[in-house]
Amino acid sequence: MSTHPDTRQRIVASARDLIYSRSYADVGVAEICARAEVRKGSFYHFFSSKQELALAVIDELGMALEDQVLGPAFARDLPPLQRLERFLEALHAFQQGTAEQAGHMLGCPFGNLALELATRDEVIRRKLETVFATIQARFERVLEEATANEVQALDIPATAQAMLAYIEGVLLMAKTTDDAGLIPRLGPAFLQIRIPAATI
Amino acid sequence: MSTHPDTRQRIVASARDLIYSRSYADVGVAEICARAEVRKGSFYHFFSSKQELALAVIDELGMALEDQVLGPAFARDLPPLQRLERFLEALHAFQQGTAEQAGHMLGCPFGNLALELATRDEVIRRKLETVFATIQARFERVLEEATANEVQALDIPATAQAMLAYIEGVLLMAKTTDDAGLIPRLGPAFLQIRIPAATI
Repeated sequence: MSTHPDTRQRIVASARDLIYSRSYADVGVAEICARAEVRKGSFYHFFSSKQELALAVIDELGMALEDQVLGPAFARDLPPLQRLERFLEALHAFQQGTAEQAGHMLGCPFGNLALELATRDEVIRRKLETVFATIQARFERVLEEATANEVQALDIPATAQAMLAYIEGVLLMAKTTDDAGLIPRLGPAFLQIRIPAATI
Repeated sequence: MSTHPDTRQRIVASARDLIYSRSYADVGVAEICARAEVRKGSFYHFFSSKQELALAVIDELGMALEDQVLGPAFARDLPPLQRLERFLEALHAFQQGTAEQAGHMLGCPFGNLALELATRDEVIRRKLETVFATIQARFERVLEEATANEVQALDIPATAQAMLAYIEGVLLMAKTTDDAGLIPRLGPAFLQIRIPAATI
């Protein structure tokens, strides 16, 4: 039985690839271990359950999102609205890359897990809520900068959440139609979304 | 073994309720038969596979959407943009009603199935694509009426698809946060979505 940290990482990477390209329910511990080339005993050394593994997979995907999409897109070398455009481009590149590898549009891994599991696993649902809150916070910072001089007050948290909802919806439609081209075609409309602050 | 048409309907209704509140993979034929109070032999008289049942469930849900949401919302007794507002209200009422019954926000049954199955079942993916196309066509008709006198030309199919994507995204976020209140809070922004026609 291997208890080496690399073994844990191999298990998480195998689970991430299998679950992202199919679904949580469709992938079992035995298949994950076979792909990672580890014994079941090693799996249970690192993870007490498939749920605990799913939480580690979400962390792993969250770091990949940060490194490959959010970090580069929201770097402060561009004005705020151009960072949002760069975010769309990075998202499109990431989705197109995974689609070419997998043979299908895979969509948003967090959205996929949310719709599959939100009614049945409260721990995973809350974990996904925090991932979405992190992305939403990125949009909020950009909106604060971009609208600092605007006359009409914006409900920044609601607008950021609406922008995230739109992105999730575009990825859902892109996965359903198996067409990553939907991201550049529909994506730019997310820059128009504005929810005004309630007037007192 | 019952081959009565009512038996088929009971099987479809049971499958609809179980799959919508959990997931496709999580619900087996045995559980569907138990809930419908039919024997497995009756199930296989009507359906050759779980996939064939899923297609019947999607048809059933499509008819419910038409009767309870789309039909009443898009009746032509109101001007076009007010029909879209009525659509949002009907959607909120439907989602709130099912959430109260189920104890959780269930989201969009078509979006749920799309994210769970689009990479693994091409027949179900195509079926869901046609359901989304039907909803999109409703939005297109309203946009044609609403923008007939506008100066700036709109890409009506793209705008309608973007509106649908936004609604799917709001339902995804509402399910993830288990909060139907997101529909009235974020929903109205879908009236702002505009994708201009490409200039030649």
